[in-house]
Amino acid sequence: MASYIKEIRNAYGFDDVAIVPGSVTLNPELADTSFVLGTCTFDTPFIASAMDAVVDPSFAALMHQTGGLAVMNLEGIQTRYEDPAVALETIVSASQATVTNILQDIYTRPIDEKLIQTRVQQIKSSGSVCAVSVTPQNTKRLAPLAVEAGADVIVVQSTVTTARHISRSYKGLVLSELIPSLKGVPLVVGNCVTYDAALELIETGIDGLLVGVGPGAACTTREVTGVGVPQVTATLECAAARENHYATTGKYVSIITDGGFRTGGDICKAIVAGADAVMLGTPFAQSAEAPGRGYNWGMAGKDSELPRGTRVGTGTTAPLDQIINGPTAVTNGTQNFLAALKVCMGMVGAKTIREFQQAELVLAPAIKTEGKHLQLNS
Amino acid sequence: MASYIKEIRNAYGFDDVAIVPGSVTLNPELADTSFVLGTCTFDTPFIASAMDAVVDPSFAALMHQTGGLAVMNLEGIQTRYEDPAVALETIVSASQATVTNILQDIYTRPIDEKLIQTRVQQIKSSGSVCAVSVTPQNTKRLAPLAVEAGADVIVVQSTVTTARHISRSYKGLVLSELIPSLKGVPLVVGNCVTYDAALELIETGIDGLLVGVGPGAACTTREVTGVGVPQVTATLECAAARENHYATTGKYVSIITDGGFRTGGDICKAIVAGADAVMLGTPFAQSAEAPGRGYNWGMAGKDSELPRGTRVGTGTTAPLDQIINGPTAVTNGTQNFLAALKVCMGMVGAKTIREFQQAELVLAPAIKTEGKHLQLNS
Amino acid sequence: MASYIKEIRNAYGFDDVAIVPGSVTLNPELADTSFVLGTCTFDTPFIASAMDAVVDPSFAALMHQTGGLAVMNLEGIQTRYEDPAVALETIVSASQATVTNILQDIYTRPIDEKLIQTRVQQIKSSGSVCAVSVTPQNTKRLAPLAVEAGADVIVVQSTVTTARHISRSYKGLVLSELIPSLKGVPLVVGNCVTYDAALELIETGIDGLLVGVGPGAACTTREVTGVGVPQVTATLECAAARENHYATTGKYVSIITDGGFRTGGDICKAIVAGADAVMLGTPFAQSAEAPGRGYNWGMAGKDSELPRGTRVGTGTTAPLDQIINGPTAVTNGTQNFLAALKVCMGMVGAKTIREFQQAELVLAPAIKTEGKHLQLNS
Amino acid sequence: MASYIKEIRNAYGFDDVAIVPGSVTLNPELADTSFVLGTCTFDTPFIASAMDAVVDPSFAALMHQTGGLAVMNLEGIQTRYEDPAVALETIVSASQATVTNILQDIYTRPIDEKLIQTRVQQIKSSGSVCAVSVTPQNTKRLAPLAVEAGADVIVVQSTVTTARHISRSYKGLVLSELIPSLKGVPLVVGNCVTYDAALELIETGIDGLLVGVGPGAACTTREVTGVGVPQVTATLECAAARENHYATTGKYVSIITDGGFRTGGDICKAIVAGADAVMLGTPFAQSAEAPGRGYNWGMAGKDSELPRGTRVGTGTTAPLDQIINGPTAVTNGTQNFLAALKVCMGMVGAKTIREFQQAELVLAPAIKTEGKHLQLNS
Repeated sequence: MASYIKEIRNAYGFDDVAIVPGSVTLNPELADTSFVLGTCTFDTPFIASAMDAVVDPSFAALMHQTGGLAVMNLEGIQTRYEDPAVALETIVSASQATVTNILQDIYTRPIDEKLIQTRVQQIKSSGSVCAVSVTPQNTKRLAPLAVEAGADVIVVQSTVTTARHISRSYKGLVLSELIPSLKGVPLVVGNCVTYDAALELIETGIDGLLVGVGPGAACTTREVTGVGVPQVTATLECAAARENHYATTGKYVSIITDGGFRTGGDICKAIVAGADAVMLGTPFAQSAEAPGRGYNWGMAGKDSELPRGTRVGTGTTAPLDQIINGPTAVTNGTQNFLAALKVCMGMVGAKTIREFQQAELVLAPAIKTEGKHLQLNS
Repeated sequence: MASYIKEIRNAYGFDDVAIVPGSVTLNPELADTSFVLGTCTFDTPFIASAMDAVVDPSFAALMHQTGGLAVMNLEGIQTRYEDPAVALETIVSASQATVTNILQDIYTRPIDEKLIQTRVQQIKSSGSVCAVSVTPQNTKRLAPLAVEAGADVIVVQSTVTTARHISRSYKGLVLSELIPSLKGVPLVVGNCVTYDAALELIETGIDGLLVGVGPGAACTTREVTGVGVPQVTATLECAAARENHYATTGKYVSIITDGGFRTGGDICKAIVAGADAVMLGTPFAQSAEAPGRGYNWGMAGKDSELPRGTRVGTGTTAPLDQIINGPTAVTNGTQNFLAALKVCMGMVGAKTIREFQQAELVLAPAIKTEGKHLQLNS
Repeated sequence: MASYIKEIRNAYGFDDVAIVPGSVTLNPELADTSFVLGTCTFDTPFIASAMDAVVDPSFAALMHQTGGLAVMNLEGIQTRYEDPAVALETIVSASQATVTNILQDIYTRPIDEKLIQTRVQQIKSSGSVCAVSVTPQNTKRLAPLAVEAGADVIVVQSTVTTARHISRSYKGLVLSELIPSLKGVPLVVGNCVTYDAALELIETGIDGLLVGVGPGAACTTREVTGVGVPQVTATLECAAARENHYATTGKYVSIITDGGFRTGGDICKAIVAGADAVMLGTPFAQSAEAPGRGYNWGMAGKDSELPRGTRVGTGTTAPLDQIINGPTAVTNGTQNFLAALKVCMGMVGAKTIREFQQAELVLAPAIKTEGKHLQLNS
Repeated sequence: MASYIKEIRNAYGFDDVAIVPGSVTLNPELADTSFVLGTCTFDTPFIASAMDAVVDPSFAALMHQTGGLAVMNLEGIQTRYEDPAVALETIVSASQATVTNILQDIYTRPIDEKLIQTRVQQIKSSGSVCAVSVTPQNTKRLAPLAVEAGADVIVVQSTVTTARHISRSYKGLVLSELIPSLKGVPLVVGNCVTYDAALELIETGIDGLLVGVGPGAACTTREVTGVGVPQVTATLECAAARENHYATTGKYVSIITDGGFRTGGDICKAIVAGADAVMLGTPFAQSAEAPGRGYNWGMAGKDSELPRGTRVGTGTTAPLDQIINGPTAVTNGTQNFLAALKVCMGMVGAKTIREFQQAELVLAPAIKTEGKHLQLNS
C-alpha cells in the first residue's frame, strides 16, 4: 500500500511557532534593521502591499518617510480612475451584501495608460522611492511604461506566479527576457511558496521574491480553491532556495514575506524564518492615512466569475508613523513594529537582519493560551 | 509492553491539509475536468448524492444539464410514495423535536416496485443519464428492475459495504455474481474507507467506488458508533488500492469521494488525494431546485432503533447552475465549484483530473486562522 | 543535553481517535456483547459507577434487568444515612455556590456498618447480582462485612490504587492477602492507567481492573493535581498488561474502562482499545431512575481540604432501559448504547467483544468538524 | 533543499501535558515539599513574583508565614514612592483605556535609593526572609545597597538575561564579578528558557535560575515580539542544564519556573518537568492581601515606547493562607496549592521534590475536554 500513498509534509504558520531567545543578548539600540533590494537600501524592512485600500501616492510618500517602501497597484483604482476618490467612496460606503458585486463593477473599467505616468510622477515628486505592481498578463505592456515614467522598483505579482506558465491566449511572460528591458530597475516577482518554484524564479535573474499564497485577511483563496502553504513553512522553503542560489552564484535575492501578519511578533517570525522584508496589507490599512478608510479588500475580489476575497472591516487605529515607529500604549503587538523588531533582535542577540535569520524557532501552538485564561476577566 | 500495544495511524480530513501550488502554472481555461465512469463520460466530476432532499427526477435532469450526474435513491420517498410532495412537505414542516420520529414513520412505508420504472423513465425522458442507488440487502431484487427500466448506472450503497458480509437472515450479496446480470450497466459500490476493503471491492469487477464513512453534515455515525476515517486519508487509501489494481490489471476504477464537502477547496483536496469525482449532498441541498427546500437528512435517520442522522437546516442559497458554474458574488467557496476546480488545476499546472491527482498536499491545520482574526470585525 | 531531557510520550483520548471499518462486515444481530467477570456473566458490558447520584438498591435492580451490572458505593450516603432521601434532597436542592461545602458536610457522618447488610440484602432481594465498592483504607474492615451479607462482586477503588502503597497511619492493603478472605467472590480493583501499575495489580490475583484517572464529568483531579492519562491510551496500556499476563498464565483479567464517556461512540472506542466492559457515571445519572435526579457528583468532592469534584448538572433525558436498549429518536449517540455497540461490531466484522478488541483505530481529531459546519444553522 | 531548511523543535506548555501516576503510591502526609536556595530552606516551594501588584513588605511577611518566599521589586512603586498607596490607587482606579499610559507615567519617577533600606528593613522587622529583585542595568548600583540593608536573597531579573550581553551604553553585568560583592547572599538570575543559555548562567556561580519568557497573564511579550518557549519545555531544558552541572561539579542550582500558572496542576507539572520551586504572580494577586486589589500588571507595561503588558483584572478570591494551605470549597485547582502538591506527590509515590522531578509526563492535549462537555450545563 505504502508505495501508492502520497506523502504529506507538515507546514507551519505564525501561530504555530515561537522565537527562542539567544545565548547572547544585545541592546535593541544596536540592532540594524536595514534592507537591500537590488540597488535600493531602506532603513526598515516594512513594505506596504499593492492594494488599493492601502497605497495611493500620498501614502507612498508617508511610507518612504518612515524608512520603508510602498508598492502601488498599477492595475487598480489609481490607473482606472482619474479621480480615485469617487470609486473609493463607493466601495467604502457599500453594504456588506452588495460590496462584492460593487468591487466587480469598479474593476471592470479599463486601465488608462496615461494615468501610469501621472501616479508615478506624483510619488516621485515627493522624493520617494516609487515601486509599482503589475500582473504577469500585463507586464510586457505596462512595465515599460512604468520604467519610462520613472518607477524605481517593478513588482510582477499574481496569486501564484511561476517561471513556466502555460497559456493558450497569450505567450507567457518570460522573466529573463523582461529583465533587460527594465534598464536596471530592480524586479520583484511573486507570489510563490515552494522551494522548487522559488529556485526557478530566482534563477531568471530577479532581485526579490514575494512569498505567500492566500494568507491575507482580505483573501479567501484557501476556502475557494484549497490552495495555500502557511507562511512560516513557505518562507523557510523560499529562503532555502535563496541560500542555495546565493551559495552557488553569489547573487543575493531578497525574500519578502507577503501577507498574514497581525502583530510585530508575526513580522519577527517571518524574518527568523528567512525573510529580508515583510509586505503588510491589513496592518497598514488600519492607519489613519490609508485610502481604504477602515476597510481593506483583495485583488482577487475583482474576479467577476470566482471572487476569492471581499471587503474586510479593519478599523482605523493610529497614524502610520505610530504603527511603525511608536510610541504606543497598545500592548497587543499591533503598533510600533520597529521597536518590536529591535527588541526581538536584542533578545536573540542579532545585530543585523541577516543574523536575525539564524535565530531558532520552536513549534509551540499552546503558547497562545498559557497563563492567559484570566485575561478574559479583565 | 510495546508488542501488546495497538498501533494508531494518523488520519487527515479536509481541514487538516492544503494544496501546494506547482512549479508550472496553467491558464484555467486549459483545464479539462472530464470524468469517466465505465462507458459514460461526464464534463464535470460532480455527482449529486442519493438523498431524498437532493435528488428527484427533475433535479437529475438539471444535474445532467450542468455536465454532472445525479443518483436517485431507489429506496426512499420517490419509490415509497406515488406523490412524494406530501411526504416531503411533512418532513420539511416538522419541528426539530419531532422530526426524527417523523422520518422513522415516513420511511416505514414499503417500496412500491412499480414506481422504480416510473422514476427511471421520468429521468430518461429528459435525455439525462439515469443513476440509481440501492442497498446491499435489496440489490438482488431491485437492481434488475432498474436495469430493465433503463437505468444507466447502478449504485450499491450502505454505510459500510464490504466484498464479504456475514448475515444470518439473507445470503450476502456477491458482487461478482451481480455484475453479469447488469448487462454492462456500470456498477458503483460503497462506502469504503480503507485500502484492504477497497482492493477487495475493486477486484470484484466494479466500475466505481464510493469513499467515506460518516463525514456528511446530515450524518452522526461517528458520534453514535465511533466509526469513521477522515476523507483525505480515506481517499488516499482507496486511491492507492485503485492504482495497485490499475498497475496490475490495466482496469481503471473511478474513486468517488462521498460526503463532508463544504467548499470548492474541499472538492479540490479530495481530487488531489486521488478521487476522480466527488459526491455532494448538503452543498446541492442548498440549491433552489433541491426537493429538500432548505433541509437535508441522512438515510441513517430512518433507522427506528438507532438513528444516526437527522434533518439539518441547510438554507437555500442559489440556483444549482450558479452553485456549479457561477458566476457568483459569494467569496467563501460555496459557489462556482467548476471555476474553483479549474483555477486550482491552473495553480498546480494540471491539464487533467489525472494530472491533478499528482499535486502535493501539506498538513496545515493552522492555515485556517492565519491572518484571519480581523475578519471577525468585518 | 538530550540525555538529561525527560521523554514525553503521546497519549490519546476518545476525541482523538476513530474506529476503522473492517474488510468483512457482519449483521449487527450476530454480535455477542456478553462480558465475564470472574464467575459472573453479563449480557451487556455496561456497569453503573459507584456514585451516590447513580446507584441505589432500586437502580441496581434495574441495571440487572438490562443485562448489566451496578456497583453500589459502600462508603456513601447509602451506608451513612438510614433514610438516604433526605441527604440526597439536601444535595440536589443546594445552590451551586454552597454545594461543595454541603457535600463536605454530608460525607462527614460516619458509616453505619449495619446499613451494609441492609443495602446488600435490598439488592439481593430483587434477584440481582450485587456489586459494592470500598476504598483501600476501609477494605479490610468493610469487605468481609459485604461478603458476609451476600455481595457477589467486591470493588476496591480510589483515585489511584497501586499494589504497593506507602502509609504511616495504617498498614497498606495487601491484595494477595485480601483475596482468600473473599471466599471466591470476584475482586475488581482500581483505578489505574499505566502498564506497569496494571501488571502489578493483575499479578496479585484480581479478577477485574478499573482504568481511568480523572476523566469523568464530575471530577477535576486533572485541574487540581495535573494527574491523568486520557482513556484510550490508559486502556491500551492496561489491556496490554492483561494480554501479557493472559499469555503467560492463562488467567484472563477483565479490563473495565471507567469514566469520561458521553456517547456510544466513546464506549465502542474504549472496547476497541482493549476494554471488556465500561463503567458509566454521568450517562446513567441522566436516566429518569437515577437517585441524583438530574445531578451527579464525584467522590473526590467530599475531601474537606482539597475537593477535586463538584456537583454537575446532567439533566434527566430518558428511562434507563431506553438509554441502554433504545429505541430512540435521539441522534447524538447518548441513547441506545447496546444497538450502537452491535452496529459498530457489525461494521468492523466482530462477533464477540474479544474480536472487537482487535479492530483498528486511527488518530483523527479533525473528524469532529468535517462536514459539520452547517449543523450550526439547523 | 533539506540542508538549507531550519529545523523546528516541538515545545510544550502546561496545557499540553499531564502527569502519570506511579506504580507505588504514598500517603500525602508523608510528602516533604521543602525547597533549598543557597543557604536558605523553605517549607514550601512557592515564591511570590517581584510584581508591584503582588508583593509589598506586609505581603512578604505573610508569604514567609506560609512557609514560602516573596520577592520585592526594588525598581517599582515601593522604591519610587515613599507612600506607595497613592500610586497603587491611581493604577487600580484607572480605566482600561488609559491604564497603559498611566503605568508609563507612574514608572517614570526615579528610584529613591533611601527607600531600598526602608523596605528591606520593613520586611526584616517581621522576622521574614527578605528577597529583592533588580534589573541587570541597575544591579551594580542597587544590589550592594540591598545587601547592606540586610537582604537575604538577590534576584537579577529581566525578560531575557544571558551571561553575555552586548551594550553600547553600559558595560554589561558580569555575574562572576558580582557574586563576590554579595558577601554570600544567594543570587537568583533570570529569565532564561534554553539549555545553552541556562548552562552559561549556571556556570557563573549563581544559586537559582528563573525559567520563563512571556508566559504570565500580565505579559504580552509573545504577541509583541514573537519570543517565547512554553514552560514545560523551558523547564525541561533548564533543568537538564542544572543536572549536567550538578553531575560534573556537585553544585546544585535551583530551578524556579516563573509565570504562566493558574492551578495546582500547573505547579505540579512544572516540578515534574524539573523545577525545584515555582514563582507565581497572578494566582497570588488574587489573594485578599495583595497590594494590587484585584488587578495585576507586568513590568513590561512600563516601557513607554513598546509596552508588552498591561493591567489585568484578576479579581480577589481568598486570603493568601487559604490559597496556599486551604481548606477550600473551590474545585477548579486555584486554591490549596500545598495539598494539591502533596496529593500529586502521593499519586506518583514521591517522598521529596527531587523524587517528584522523576515522575513521568504524557502529551495529552485532549485531556482538557474528555468527559467534560456536560459541565457546560451545570
